[in-house]
Amino acid sequence: MAEKIRLTAPQAAFSRRLGHEFADPSLLRTALTHRSHSSPHNERLEFLGDSILNCVVAHLLFERFPQLPEGDLSRLRANLVKKDTLHELALGLNLGEQLRLGEGELKSGGHTRPSILADALEALFGAVYLDAGFDRAKVVVGNLFTAKLDAIAPDQPIKDPKTRLQEYLQARRQPLPVYTLAATDGQAHLQQFRVLCEVASAALQTEGQGSSRRAAEQEAASRALEKLKA
Amino acid sequence: MAEKIRLTAPQAAFSRRLGHEFADPSLLRTALTHRSHSSPHNERLEFLGDSILNCVVAHLLFERFPQLPEGDLSRLRANLVKKDTLHELALGLNLGEQLRLGEGELKSGGHTRPSILADALEALFGAVYLDAGFDRAKVVVGNLFTAKLDAIAPDQPIKDPKTRLQEYLQARRQPLPVYTLAATDGQAHLQQFRVLCEVASAALQTEGQGSSRRAAEQEAASRALEKLKA
Repeated sequence: MAEKIRLTAPQAAFSRRLGHEFADPSLLRTALTHRSHSSPHNERLEFLGDSILNCVVAHLLFERFPQLPEGDLSRLRANLVKKDTLHELALGLNLGEQLRLGEGELKSGGHTRPSILADALEALFGAVYLDAGFDRAKVVVGNLFTAKLDAIAPDQPIKDPKTRLQEYLQARRQPLPVYTLAATDGQAHLQQFRVLCEVASAALQTEGQGSSRRAAEQEAASRALEKLKA
Repeated sequence: MAEKIRLTAPQAAFSRRLGHEFADPSLLRTALTHRSHSSPHNERLEFLGDSILNCVVAHLLFERFPQLPEGDLSRLRANLVKKDTLHELALGLNLGEQLRLGEGELKSGGHTRPSILADALEALFGAVYLDAGFDRAKVVVGNLFTAKLDAIAPDQPIKDPKTRLQEYLQARRQPLPVYTLAATDGQAHLQQFRVLCEVASAALQTEGQGSSRRAAEQEAASRALEKLKA
């Protein structure tokens, strides 16, 4: 920290591609430094960045899919933050050519190794967070993931759980689920509905609750899907 | 969201114990609502809050233990965010008496069930985040976890990896590790040291790098510990 660090021109260009200008350029440099090169290297930043990434993607999904139950949000997130996706995004940023690797890693092609690239990208998220705070990291991560998030929207999650359950069963040539209203509680303006969803072919019965019968059915269907896919 | 929500006096008191006054009290109410009670319930907030908690604790550990490698930080975090710890913190807040549970859960003692309490506490972290942003959630989580974090400091992680490796082997009556300098690279003011750590009893050899011989030894010891404990 004592010496004042100046970024190289390619590092500065990379920083612009990432979408963040670092107040403390040493953070960028550390995030790009693999442990085979020198210390400080990027592993601690990766630990931090991984949790920032998970948190930002959790919030982005939470906002985008206000009706989706927790289990679906978890699955979507797992798909977005996996190594393959990070590797692909790192390639889009030409991250490999900025990596600082030790001799051995360099010779064995470490700058194209998916895990090294994915880890460095996570470390960069940690570096942005330390440099400028969570909201800034959210913007950087959000911009990088916009296309991925948009790509989710049209298919699976925009379909509601009842539709997905129906399609799941039809694809397996199994009979459709049967929904029955089990109970209605509460006064007129605060009614709560309890609905049962029965999937006979799987000997499965789930329950859903909601402020409308439809909402209760959707929840019951969502839980049935979770169990069928478990 | 249409109706204006007013907290009950006990809810307002609970909110003060948690350390956050909600601009939108409906978030607090949702976080305290179990799925057995009504919708909206706290499962989506729990999904969000879990990631906030992980992220905040990651940063707190990152700051407190600037020398600790990533593997140690992960282990410490796993210990802090586990259900038992959350349950204990929830008890300290008297969270159970604020939970909104359905009839069945109420009768079967749901308000004392550790998983229900732990989940609701995570949901509360999500609610604070949505209500007032990440930095506010960090303060709330940080205050709750201060004692837990302080309790870590005196023992394990304050000891450096070389000391811990030595103690680990002594406890098992095995010979001490042998460190050898493998290489020194770079110019005088940017020297890099590579050190090997050999644990003969486990037929194990690890390597560490650093800007001093001692730093390289610590890293090699840390990796040896990781492998011995794997």
